[in-house]
Amino acid sequence: MTELFGGLPDAFASDTDVQLLDTTLRDGEQAPGVSLSPAEKAEIARRLDRANVSVIEAGSACTGSGERETIRRVTALDLDATVTSFTRGVRGDVDLALDCDVDGVNLVVPASDRHVERKVGTTRDEVIEKTAELVAYARDHGLWVEVIGEDGSRADLGFLERLMAAAFDAGADRVCYADTVGHAGPERTHEVVSTLAALGPTSTHTHDDLGLAMTNVYASLAAGADLVHATVNGVGERAGNVALEEVAVALHHCYGVDTVKLDELHDLGQLVARATGVDLPPNKAVVGQNAFTHESGIHTDGTLKDDAMYEPYPPETVGRERRLVLGKHAGRAGVRAALDEHGVSATDEDLAAVVERVKALGDRGKRVTDADLLAIAEDVQGRERDRRVELIDLTAASGGGTPTASVRLLVDGEERVASGTGSGPVDAAVEAVRAALGPSADAQLDSYHVDAITGGTDALVTVEVQMSRGDRTVTVASSDADITRASVEAMVDALDRLLAAEPKTAPADD
Amino acid sequence: MTELFGGLPDAFASDTDVQLLDTTLRDGEQAPGVSLSPAEKAEIARRLDRANVSVIEAGSACTGSGERETIRRVTALDLDATVTSFTRGVRGDVDLALDCDVDGVNLVVPASDRHVERKVGTTRDEVIEKTAELVAYARDHGLWVEVIGEDGSRADLGFLERLMAAAFDAGADRVCYADTVGHAGPERTHEVVSTLAALGPTSTHTHDDLGLAMTNVYASLAAGADLVHATVNGVGERAGNVALEEVAVALHHCYGVDTVKLDELHDLGQLVARATGVDLPPNKAVVGQNAFTHESGIHTDGTLKDDAMYEPYPPETVGRERRLVLGKHAGRAGVRAALDEHGVSATDEDLAAVVERVKALGDRGKRVTDADLLAIAEDVQGRERDRRVELIDLTAASGGGTPTASVRLLVDGEERVASGTGSGPVDAAVEAVRAALGPSADAQLDSYHVDAITGGTDALVTVEVQMSRGDRTVTVASSDADITRASVEAMVDALDRLLAAEPKTAPADD
Repeated sequence: MTELFGGLPDAFASDTDVQLLDTTLRDGEQAPGVSLSPAEKAEIARRLDRANVSVIEAGSACTGSGERETIRRVTALDLDATVTSFTRGVRGDVDLALDCDVDGVNLVVPASDRHVERKVGTTRDEVIEKTAELVAYARDHGLWVEVIGEDGSRADLGFLERLMAAAFDAGADRVCYADTVGHAGPERTHEVVSTLAALGPTSTHTHDDLGLAMTNVYASLAAGADLVHATVNGVGERAGNVALEEVAVALHHCYGVDTVKLDELHDLGQLVARATGVDLPPNKAVVGQNAFTHESGIHTDGTLKDDAMYEPYPPETVGRERRLVLGKHAGRAGVRAALDEHGVSATDEDLAAVVERVKALGDRGKRVTDADLLAIAEDVQGRERDRRVELIDLTAASGGGTPTASVRLLVDGEERVASGTGSGPVDAAVEAVRAALGPSADAQLDSYHVDAITGGTDALVTVEVQMSRGDRTVTVASSDADITRASVEAMVDALDRLLAAEPKTAPADD
Repeated sequence: MTELFGGLPDAFASDTDVQLLDTTLRDGEQAPGVSLSPAEKAEIARRLDRANVSVIEAGSACTGSGERETIRRVTALDLDATVTSFTRGVRGDVDLALDCDVDGVNLVVPASDRHVERKVGTTRDEVIEKTAELVAYARDHGLWVEVIGEDGSRADLGFLERLMAAAFDAGADRVCYADTVGHAGPERTHEVVSTLAALGPTSTHTHDDLGLAMTNVYASLAAGADLVHATVNGVGERAGNVALEEVAVALHHCYGVDTVKLDELHDLGQLVARATGVDLPPNKAVVGQNAFTHESGIHTDGTLKDDAMYEPYPPETVGRERRLVLGKHAGRAGVRAALDEHGVSATDEDLAAVVERVKALGDRGKRVTDADLLAIAEDVQGRERDRRVELIDLTAASGGGTPTASVRLLVDGEERVASGTGSGPVDAAVEAVRAALGPSADAQLDSYHVDAITGGTDALVTVEVQMSRGDRTVTVASSDADITRASVEAMVDALDRLLAAEPKTAPADD
């Protein structure tokens, strides 16, 4: 075992700016199961431009006429960013890109022998010749040209150097080191990028198959690269690309290098998650739901004393807010803060008992919602819950015809029955609840979420709703094997909590 | 802007083994909303031990009696791994850990002034004194002791060095650099770890708030650390910890350093995802669903020519299999391979038409399932689909009482009606389908999956089922605002595809 973790040379001092190329619309879209509509691509491009991304790779013109239409939608936006198309090493691809009015092309040519010989079936010399010819052709047509050596991390370095020197000689604006299959460690990345950066401006394109996408970006920058290819949320082939938001935040936080507007990152992440259908894991850096959420007692207590106690930078930097939640590891400070929010005061003794009960609920693997906390506090303090809305009966019929449901509610002691129709049984039942409550149900359904169901058809379904009325908000979760029942129970409980804050009869006008 | 990406010193050559400490059961469990039952913790510990993880941090004995019971379940397993408890810098915590029969403790003491003064309300000198005293106490009781300096990345380096020197003097087995809030870049990590490693054996504990958890592990190892704290799937506070599977695979692939049994990683990842309820994103390195999935035409074609064309290492290395799927970027080679799997042959002309239709379906943002592909091929080839099972009518009633459903099916031209009950309307409807089909429905429901539903109660629900019969398997997806209808349609379609392979009447025995 020699020269393990050999490290990077200790001499990178530069005032070169680092810029970002976003390839969410090309490499990101190549992720299995992802397809973006023209409108979605245009919207994402607009937001990337607003965030000051330097280059937007809008797609791959050779994919088909639908894709070209989409790229044209992006070029027609007249963005500040340089808009490019991915093109293979054939003249027809460059022509198709020109048809889409792009500013430039990312010209991909085979670099490793595996790609040169086995995939494309050509020779190293032919690749060099063809590349030089195509670069000159693209430049002649006024295009900005970046030459990407596909599978560069597994290429013979001498050949890659010759190839990229020829590209620069032919007029390429820059070349790109591509760790296409996410194979390289940082030493290899540094070696290859150093060689290329000695020839001219060099980009880096890294994948996360080994979890090293960011490490290799770091190695590339240390070796002289100055443009980083990334995708929003790290979506992309296999384990995906390096995440744009992580590169931007890390460069800002650790090196004071500014690339894009950080406070646009949260909205960008949400937009791309929605459009691609690739859900963000809660523990995703910068944009994941829990990135600024604290549950454990020690962390919540510390955070309440000093915001920065358990955060490297404030959530507002990236357009977000801090969240304190309750669960198994809850402590006194966090529970006290949560009760305060709902206007519930408690003695120290009661508080200790509430904390115990919250932890016990968390111990059973449950999320502790606002409704859970309030119910526990009532029980501990011996307060009678003054229920204003109660579900007595629910019937839902669906399958064929119009989904229909009826509910029987007890509202302030008075029984009310109503029915509703909807696009499915849940929607019909929610309509029935609204009809039964009438105008007093002036509450908003802020969010309705059902966890993914995996397993059998008899799996327990957990529905979580957030509802608000005036300036009050409550979260309620309900689980049942019947999704309709779980949904209605959560909603009725949330409505009851929101109405409970109101006096039963309106106060007389004065 | 000076000394950007200063890089790491270029002289780490060592034959020190790198070992892994897994803290899924402690730091991983501190993730918001996560709670592991004693049985789950024991099962995860057993699997970690089977994978040869060196140290398992089983929990935090001071959290409560439930947690201590859980830690005892793990120590009672008599594993090869060193089993430890997290303990705060108070003697009572060490006593509680001893009660659980652990082999060692991870003693956490404040290191940054923010933690020393503002969180704990003490002084640097008192921390040093107290730490030395506790280390000696723990060692006297036969414990392996690792001292963690909380928030070490933001600590004054001179103080941290004094603190850890005192810990070693008092008998600590090792000390740990903790980037508690995921604040450090690799230069800072390298600086601090170098200082500590000069004193004695040093561990590293990194978080991913900046996306730098792996980069900082690399910097730590280059600086002389030899034990890495990690969690399965990277679950943990906020953006989580560095992922165990990524560290293990990257060290093996890039440096030939073996830490754990790699072929256990997939099952471990699935187990922890199920137990924690933290779903894996499809693009998660090593364990995500798409880590070895290829959709785009270029990648599928290349992979069919040579497995290694678009993969850094074979999926079998980590206990997995390669998947080729169809979608917007599909190409001829991939579609041909998929048709072959279902025994469908096609002329080149027909193939081209099928590819076009598959791409068009993908363009609309749809997953292309087996059923979609077969339907397209039938249509292109002008073959009449010989439907054996068709859904004519479905009624489901639920909400209160026993969920009940009935179906009317056309089976080989004969109408069959049946009813069923279940734990919810979907389950009841599935029972009704089974009853209607009778013994001919000897098919297995391999998986039933519903995407998470976010948005309104009228959102479209997508149900995907995989069913098998004998050695044939089909996937079918169906979308509807009514989850019951979508589920039944997907199942009936899958059953029809599986039965269609059979002759309508059994061949006579010979």
